[in-house]
Amino acid sequence: MGKGGLRSKRGGVSPESMDELCINTIRILSVDAVEKANSGHPGLPMGAAAAAYVLWDKFLRHNPSNPHWPGRDRFILSAGHGSMLLYALLYLTGYTLPLMEIKRFRQWKSMTPGHPEYGRPPGVEMTTGLLGQGFATGVGMAIAAEYLANYFNRRGFNLFTHNIYAIVSDGDLMEGLSYEAASLAGHLNLGRIVYIYLDNKISIEGSTEMTFTEDIRSRFEAQNWHVQKVDGYQLEEIANAIEQAKGERNKPSLIIARTHIGYGSPNKQDSADAHGAPLGKEEVRLVKKNFGWPEDKSFYVPKEVLGRFRRAREKGERLEAEWNSFFERYAKGYPEMAKSWEQMMKGSLPDVWKDPLPDFLPEDGPMGTRYASGKVLSSIAPKIFSLIGGSADLGTSIMTYIPSLGDFDKDRGGRNIHFGVREHAMGAIFNGLALNKLTPYGGTFLIFSDYMRPAIRMAAMMGLRVIYVFSHDSIGVGEDGPTHQPIEQLADLRSIPNLTVIRPADANETVYAWKVALENRTGPTALILTRQRLPIIDRRRYADAGGLKRGGYIVADPEEGSPELIIIGTGSELYLAIDAHEGLKTEGIRSRVVSLPSWEIFKGQTKKYRDHVLPPDIKARLAIEAGSPMGWRDFVGLEGEIISMESFGHSAPQDVLFDKFGFSVKNLVMKTKGLLDK
Amino acid sequence: MGKGGLRSKRGGVSPESMDELCINTIRILSVDAVEKANSGHPGLPMGAAAAAYVLWDKFLRHNPSNPHWPGRDRFILSAGHGSMLLYALLYLTGYTLPLMEIKRFRQWKSMTPGHPEYGRPPGVEMTTGLLGQGFATGVGMAIAAEYLANYFNRRGFNLFTHNIYAIVSDGDLMEGLSYEAASLAGHLNLGRIVYIYLDNKISIEGSTEMTFTEDIRSRFEAQNWHVQKVDGYQLEEIANAIEQAKGERNKPSLIIARTHIGYGSPNKQDSADAHGAPLGKEEVRLVKKNFGWPEDKSFYVPKEVLGRFRRAREKGERLEAEWNSFFERYAKGYPEMAKSWEQMMKGSLPDVWKDPLPDFLPEDGPMGTRYASGKVLSSIAPKIFSLIGGSADLGTSIMTYIPSLGDFDKDRGGRNIHFGVREHAMGAIFNGLALNKLTPYGGTFLIFSDYMRPAIRMAAMMGLRVIYVFSHDSIGVGEDGPTHQPIEQLADLRSIPNLTVIRPADANETVYAWKVALENRTGPTALILTRQRLPIIDRRRYADAGGLKRGGYIVADPEEGSPELIIIGTGSELYLAIDAHEGLKTEGIRSRVVSLPSWEIFKGQTKKYRDHVLPPDIKARLAIEAGSPMGWRDFVGLEGEIISMESFGHSAPQDVLFDKFGFSVKNLVMKTKGLLDK
Repeated sequence: MGKGGLRSKRGGVSPESMDELCINTIRILSVDAVEKANSGHPGLPMGAAAAAYVLWDKFLRHNPSNPHWPGRDRFILSAGHGSMLLYALLYLTGYTLPLMEIKRFRQWKSMTPGHPEYGRPPGVEMTTGLLGQGFATGVGMAIAAEYLANYFNRRGFNLFTHNIYAIVSDGDLMEGLSYEAASLAGHLNLGRIVYIYLDNKISIEGSTEMTFTEDIRSRFEAQNWHVQKVDGYQLEEIANAIEQAKGERNKPSLIIARTHIGYGSPNKQDSADAHGAPLGKEEVRLVKKNFGWPEDKSFYVPKEVLGRFRRAREKGERLEAEWNSFFERYAKGYPEMAKSWEQMMKGSLPDVWKDPLPDFLPEDGPMGTRYASGKVLSSIAPKIFSLIGGSADLGTSIMTYIPSLGDFDKDRGGRNIHFGVREHAMGAIFNGLALNKLTPYGGTFLIFSDYMRPAIRMAAMMGLRVIYVFSHDSIGVGEDGPTHQPIEQLADLRSIPNLTVIRPADANETVYAWKVALENRTGPTALILTRQRLPIIDRRRYADAGGLKRGGYIVADPEEGSPELIIIGTGSELYLAIDAHEGLKTEGIRSRVVSLPSWEIFKGQTKKYRDHVLPPDIKARLAIEAGSPMGWRDFVGLEGEIISMESFGHSAPQDVLFDKFGFSVKNLVMKTKGLLDK
Repeated sequence: MGKGGLRSKRGGVSPESMDELCINTIRILSVDAVEKANSGHPGLPMGAAAAAYVLWDKFLRHNPSNPHWPGRDRFILSAGHGSMLLYALLYLTGYTLPLMEIKRFRQWKSMTPGHPEYGRPPGVEMTTGLLGQGFATGVGMAIAAEYLANYFNRRGFNLFTHNIYAIVSDGDLMEGLSYEAASLAGHLNLGRIVYIYLDNKISIEGSTEMTFTEDIRSRFEAQNWHVQKVDGYQLEEIANAIEQAKGERNKPSLIIARTHIGYGSPNKQDSADAHGAPLGKEEVRLVKKNFGWPEDKSFYVPKEVLGRFRRAREKGERLEAEWNSFFERYAKGYPEMAKSWEQMMKGSLPDVWKDPLPDFLPEDGPMGTRYASGKVLSSIAPKIFSLIGGSADLGTSIMTYIPSLGDFDKDRGGRNIHFGVREHAMGAIFNGLALNKLTPYGGTFLIFSDYMRPAIRMAAMMGLRVIYVFSHDSIGVGEDGPTHQPIEQLADLRSIPNLTVIRPADANETVYAWKVALENRTGPTALILTRQRLPIIDRRRYADAGGLKRGGYIVADPEEGSPELIIIGTGSELYLAIDAHEGLKTEGIRSRVVSLPSWEIFKGQTKKYRDHVLPPDIKARLAIEAGSPMGWRDFVGLEGEIISMESFGHSAPQDVLFDKFGFSVKNLVMKTKGLLDK
């Protein structure tokens, strides 16, 4: 395909020319938007427009009038920096995205942010821009599609037949995340995946020859993918390849499309200069000239092009209507299934809390909170089909493996996903599951949360209900030593906006932690659990564990009089605080014990409640937590004390470590006395 | 090789039987140590002992009497959980590791921690245990070897000919990090790498068939590796493969050794049960019986086995002596080279600070601190040959690319490393460079530090001098939006023990930040830099930027009287604080401005100094930082105020964002008044 003129002849447009016109419209809209914003990435949309056009025009089943239609194919622009490609397609095909918003590209509160954000503009399936995330999240969407198809489809009723399409770049493929996700996708035979890789040979520092010379075809074939190579400007070749890829149901597909960054820019095509900056006024003019576009117009969309693209609305509405009537018939035949379908679509879960939940007595302990978590999960998961999860090769340690639910593998109905030692891919796949209305749970040891941080951040940013199970939460890990002992991880998770972190103190707090997590519909929750066994706090004597729902609560108070000091603890240190409280009592010292399992939830309570738990006039406050002190002065102020970890840990048995590092009743008592002496 | 008896015949030991005896000694020492510790991983040492023995006995050039001999081969146990394999080898070959310490495996302050720690016991080249790190760090060591060989070797003087050996597991190969590192290693033709992969088909959750079925040979061949397959118990086959691998100088080598986890355990071999728990008393007895070992003895080392292994000392001393005399001759021929060699080995850098450094005046600005950093780096790097660095495809944005130094590629003398979009591998490779006496620098955008966190933590734990350059440090990123705007990353880096984080406020503070980083010999330093341009603070009017060396310092004070309030700022917010101070002054309000570029350094100052900067009686304190508020109450207490980011950012021009999110003089003035009214 050449860089042909605007029209092949006056008064009419040949089909071939119409394709060209459509493709050039995407390109030039993108160039104009970046130029106006004076910021952005023109090179990708220019290079990828042809392939994206073929995909959207000929294959993508979607309904611009309803971006939430469940039967739609998913499209991910993994290389999110090329956002204008996606915005152009959304605008042209008729999503709720006026041209005015394209003109406000990258401006405050516009619908067209620098990188696509989940639902903003409508039609964006997920937030992208962090390389590799889109690639891996699509794998989660493909797992969701298989699982939901297995669950809902019935003879003659294939509700789910959709594919997961993505456009990925060399940056995506260089990130380790994409190898992890590809390895698992190939292993699981996720044939619904069709990814187009823009092989444009250019990265920011220059030619990919400088850093990225692996054999992409062999790499993906080694991971059980179906691989094709095409010229990214031969429309028929592209269409044939997508057709082939769709037909391959046992392997994920990669289409390597040779493209050119900044295609059509006389001076910047095939150069890193076309990547991340506006082309410049003069070059924009040359591009337009090159494509036979009116040089003096900006954001120009030929009428017939818009008409052509907008056929997608009509087609989409018809597709959805067909699907809806199909679903109506399904609902008549399978009313229970339809009910649970609708519940899932609303994001609500069956109210399993009405059934008896595990309730633990002191004599059931001592018990690690990871065990308590496992018991809760085993009791609720069988009742909620949309809970699906697993672990990065530690399911039997973090107690997320539920044998009765079967494995997700060739059996698409199994619900234990074995992620392998691939924490980052796991995190991204959780996001893909959650984006498709499932509620994923699972995790790894807390220390390895470091390997999946970018995916956790994505979940928080997109507001997804993901439940992380992170066990082995402190030096309580013991002999495995400092590499495996989290110190700063707890603080680091607390620092992520919109992530709720809960570190329950015993088995009963763990029950409520799960309840909070399942009821949190606006963001992810991280459950921070112990490896080591903990006493189960006697709730007949101390406050009910239900206080966890407010993030922090008073566990114990002086029998008479108001407290002189407050000891605040979380997780495995709370029982030490309670023991210290009892010891102090015998010495006539009046202490309050506060359990503070979730900072985020506590900070969200009314000032009145917070001041009730932590009265401002009581300055003598002591916090104890086997982690970094960072952030604790939010609760103890400058006058208080913190017993925490200021260094990395050591390899030794857990009880030795707790003693050596000062997590003991003795040290607590000593420190409280020091505080009172001040 | 069978699980043969202790001796082939009474009174003498055939060479073949001696090999077996040696291998079985490693196995049973490991089993005994894990059993006594009642914790650990017996399966790997049992399975890998034969391959490790061949490597150490026939190939590894090392000197147990001097683990620091620079000419030594490097050996990395990437699968660090198999630590007893390494400890057995170190003890048997005669490193400073008494048998008593093997008996104290995994105990408080023993020399034998749960996972190998750099230098503990002596002979451990790096801390391992976090999967993938050893694999990737070895790539850094190989780059160091090539670079140092290129720099120091002279005609007839090949000072550096060593290889990088590692034992890696399926867990290592599943982590995305290993793919990233392998891709770069293959691209760079790092032929000194010889890795043995223990293909034992077992991971923690069960068979690797459950998750990991990619074709390993094809995968590595696609990344330009030389791949062989061997039976992990055929000693000659292993030896031949290592020989071949050593001979291949243009490709890194992978030897896929089919092994069996828990080899020789009648009931646990080939099962996940052998992975991470003691075998149990009865099974230990059966293992000993199986190997013809005295069943009643623990930690039994046949005398002839010890004698055989200890020949490594004599051999090692000879190798080092030869190398030393070789080096003496070299030093005579090239005295200047020898001098810089010795300086490097001591870890000291040429005192470039004696030469004039960039000094910036207000009229040189406004200037992003990333630009100032680039200017400092360009002025010092050419004078320090051991500075080597690069970026994950953002060198031209974070200003670490120095054209005059050439690229590290086929030209082994170049010093700009192009890492590709591989942040995690970059972090691990930095560690490998630093472990080999180089001083790596470089980085990426601050947001992408999330992708490399585990490697940063490793650097901190090992106390390595690595200098991270993280630019684009806040919502100042602007239009790229929330995916690219760091919020919590600054807090998260501050939370890592032994990492020094510095966020300079202007060009001159940036100069001192580099100075501090280069002089920090006990741990890594992260420089946090802006994308956007900042005014250069007039140091004739305000305090000298040298105050940065104390972490925090008074920048401005009232002209008369003591301050009523303190405004604390860092980085791009400091000039706002100064402007607010000037504004308040006109209203007769006496404020102090404190620059606090490094919390870690400031907290390390005397109480007297800290109280001088932040007098305890001044409670009216206001902090401003365009990042998470986490940790700021360490400085402003509960009475103070913090202007910070409590949510993710937005896509919009930087100045709009700063205004909308309250990072403005106006907001500062308003907040300070609110504080004074309290």
